[in-house]
Amino acid sequence: MHFLITYDVETTTTEGQRRLTKVAKCCKNYGQRVQNSVFECLLTEKDLITLRSALSSIINKETDSIRIYRLGNYYKTKIEQIGKETSFDIEGTLII
Amino acid sequence: MHFLITYDVETTTTEGQRRLTKVAKCCKNYGQRVQNSVFECLLTEKDLITLRSALSSIINKETDSIRIYRLGNYYKTKIEQIGKETSFDIEGTLII
Repeated sequence: MHFLITYDVETTTTEGQRRLTKVAKCCKNYGQRVQNSVFECLLTEKDLITLRSALSSIINKETDSIRIYRLGNYYKTKIEQIGKETSFDIEGTLII
Repeated sequence: MHFLITYDVETTTTEGQRRLTKVAKCCKNYGQRVQNSVFECLLTEKDLITLRSALSSIINKETDSIRIYRLGNYYKTKIEQIGKETSFDIEGTLII
């Protein structure tokens, strides 16, 4: 299942910058960054549970915000890009 | 139909900051900001066409990126929030 994860982390403190880096690292394990604070991830329900709890443990719930959008399985037709392309086809063949 | 609009605008120049402000203003006409560069909008297909062309005319396509996600009609069950709540129910009753 395809998910979109967007986040806002309050970064006026070094602690906040550290949280921001951790959130991005955490999301990178499950998908690709398509914009500064936007990740597209292919997740099983088990992955979702793991990722959700990891993100919850990282952020400061008073100042930071994470939103998880369930895009479903047929997501490619649901996404439109204008301007600078920043993502590759997460299910496409990887040519090395 | 419910849409999610996420954007990255390159703001190292004053011109870039101006574009960022314009993009946000443009999205505000159609929906609500849920994170710094994330808007949730209820759009007809006509609105989508208008908004898409307005955003295309604002951004610098070399440096900036806009992604439009079609969430469908039954979006409430598709969104999960962790941490600081930043949005209200776009279709909920407005109490004045």
